[in-house]
Amino acid sequence: MVQVNENYLKLPGSYLFSTIGKKVSAYSAAHPDRKVIRLGIGDVTLPLVPAVIEALHSAVDEMGRAESFRGYAPDLGYEFLREIIARQDYQARGCGISADEIFISDGAKCDTGNIQEIFGPNIRIAVCDPVYPVYVDSNVMAGRTGSYDRESETWSNVIYMPCTEENQFMPGLPKETPDLIYLCFPNNPTGAAVTKPKLQEWVDYAMKIGAVILYDAAYEAYIQEDDVPHSIYECRGARSCAIEFRSFSKNAGFTGLRLGFTVVPKELKCGGVALHALWARRHGTKYNGAPYIVQRAGEAVYSPAGKAQLQEQIAYYRKNAAYIFNGLKEAGYTVSGGVNSPYIWMKTPGRMTSWEFFDYLLEKGNVVGTPGSGFGPSGERYFRLTAFGSYENTVEAVDRIKAL
Amino acid sequence: MVQVNENYLKLPGSYLFSTIGKKVSAYSAAHPDRKVIRLGIGDVTLPLVPAVIEALHSAVDEMGRAESFRGYAPDLGYEFLREIIARQDYQARGCGISADEIFISDGAKCDTGNIQEIFGPNIRIAVCDPVYPVYVDSNVMAGRTGSYDRESETWSNVIYMPCTEENQFMPGLPKETPDLIYLCFPNNPTGAAVTKPKLQEWVDYAMKIGAVILYDAAYEAYIQEDDVPHSIYECRGARSCAIEFRSFSKNAGFTGLRLGFTVVPKELKCGGVALHALWARRHGTKYNGAPYIVQRAGEAVYSPAGKAQLQEQIAYYRKNAAYIFNGLKEAGYTVSGGVNSPYIWMKTPGRMTSWEFFDYLLEKGNVVGTPGSGFGPSGERYFRLTAFGSYENTVEAVDRIKAL
Repeated sequence: MVQVNENYLKLPGSYLFSTIGKKVSAYSAAHPDRKVIRLGIGDVTLPLVPAVIEALHSAVDEMGRAESFRGYAPDLGYEFLREIIARQDYQARGCGISADEIFISDGAKCDTGNIQEIFGPNIRIAVCDPVYPVYVDSNVMAGRTGSYDRESETWSNVIYMPCTEENQFMPGLPKETPDLIYLCFPNNPTGAAVTKPKLQEWVDYAMKIGAVILYDAAYEAYIQEDDVPHSIYECRGARSCAIEFRSFSKNAGFTGLRLGFTVVPKELKCGGVALHALWARRHGTKYNGAPYIVQRAGEAVYSPAGKAQLQEQIAYYRKNAAYIFNGLKEAGYTVSGGVNSPYIWMKTPGRMTSWEFFDYLLEKGNVVGTPGSGFGPSGERYFRLTAFGSYENTVEAVDRIKAL
Repeated sequence: MVQVNENYLKLPGSYLFSTIGKKVSAYSAAHPDRKVIRLGIGDVTLPLVPAVIEALHSAVDEMGRAESFRGYAPDLGYEFLREIIARQDYQARGCGISADEIFISDGAKCDTGNIQEIFGPNIRIAVCDPVYPVYVDSNVMAGRTGSYDRESETWSNVIYMPCTEENQFMPGLPKETPDLIYLCFPNNPTGAAVTKPKLQEWVDYAMKIGAVILYDAAYEAYIQEDDVPHSIYECRGARSCAIEFRSFSKNAGFTGLRLGFTVVPKELKCGGVALHALWARRHGTKYNGAPYIVQRAGEAVYSPAGKAQLQEQIAYYRKNAAYIFNGLKEAGYTVSGGVNSPYIWMKTPGRMTSWEFFDYLLEKGNVVGTPGSGFGPSGERYFRLTAFGSYENTVEAVDRIKAL
């Protein structure tokens, strides 16, 4: 009799954003006349920019002609995309990352979810609290997290690094020693950004204890301040202790197009084994590449026209972020994030829990946000709003919240 | 100090098709004047059909306009695609599969590689020998396969079901009891097709012993004979013991576009746990959907125009298959497959091993095929040719082989 993976059964409830989606669908079905504004899930709303659309059309045409048709993509992605990423995202910032250290994929969610596979079953992970649920859930599925305590909403074998108002949502080095450290900056969900000296401390720490940092830089495009690093490889020594994840979802609106990449430097080794070889093996065995047309769209993101158009797009979302941040502040809420990040992290009013505030906001204001507690126990009594709506909707949502 | 997943280190050599790719690149680099014809990797060569190209252009345009832009896709795929698949691939054949039992993905390789995750660590798998390497390799990575014996090229904890000339490449029920049974029909690599009564025996067997069948039907479009089932759900009881995988790669030329799906019937349970819920959880946690534009392209595959155009495309590849099959037979080779399948399975001449024949064919005939031994020990002294080349190249390749 076949057995299921019992670790799956330990997962409490369903995936955060699925739950939100169901709640919103149910509310909308019951109140078809109400205009619900979604500032919850981190999904973009502006259309793809013209340079990307043009690249897609042109690649589609290539796929329709025998002489330019492309079948299976190279395992690690097309050279044209990896080269331009290496040059513009890394070498231009003084990070010595080469094209063959870049693995193209269909998004950072898949990569941050799958990366744990190349590590042993008994390693210990450290995560920020609150945190993007995929990091923890994928390790639960792999059986690394011990048992779940419903009271504290924590796993016995996970090291939590609280990010609170007291530490300005910037985690301190953990007291217990981890093997894998998940860091995301600019942070999801708190919107906090790390400075270069602070990130250097993490790199130094990881090197000292022989840990690997999994650095999620999906929100890099929102960085505005000079002392905030765009890549962990701006830090000394990171090539030997860090893997970096990037996404096209938030800098180019590819949430529905699916493109991302992971950087695994060749000198990153654990017990003499190069992680680059392991990740390459995983890619080669369980993945078949991002679509050619989408990789061409990714290339267009780095073209002069694409960059100019996307700067405008990001400026639009930044304006939203500022509007939410300032509006809520004026209304007396405690808010953070929103400067180097599309996320605004607010304290719930009064003694409301995150889900109470979610329901309250959905029902009274018809505004959807994300309950902070969905990201971990330290997210309780917090709430995340995103800047990815239209400007008109964002203004209306903030006005509605103010009016409550 | 972080540990790596040591199971990865047990994998012998690199992934079969990566090795072939490297050998061919090296040969071509050394002999730039030679025209190498590739009938090795199962990659298609004809361009996408006009109905698909049109659907892609139209979906790209939608992504460029605010009012029709689509962000994150629904977890299990867009309803428009799941509905049409359920209707045309299943309900039209009398299989009671509904849209919400279909999970859209970026291809059958990913799904057949990832599916093992939802099962326990100590289950025993049975595979055909020879077999598509992904089934075994993904279980090696998960630590289920025991130790590797270099002499016999087998894993101690895998049940092999030899497919040989003696049994017409149709595996018998295994002597030891498996938990998970991987079956692929029409078969990759042998090209053998199963009849409905024969497949019913497998379904009955799985139900009797409480095993789950993982049925890879990626080559379904090549079925020509009436007694060959297109889906395992044509068999009684399969809804409670089988998961089916389908691909758009071979029926619509989507190898570079990436689209597939997996069917998990709702009544399929192990120890009371619905596998549908587990696979949904995996999708929700580690995957973010196939691109909207690619799902629209998939929809076009089912349109009247798309179907007519693809019938022509498949007829073209079938003609290649027949040419290879007949040509090699005339030349005195022992060949099988090629009727309900794009794959021709041939015995190597004389006492040549599969890789010896690979090198011989590459160097003397400048033709690339796939060594049968790469698919398992019973594949030794066999060789796979595919019908996915152009007709002109196929004719030339067969003529070159005949002339050797």
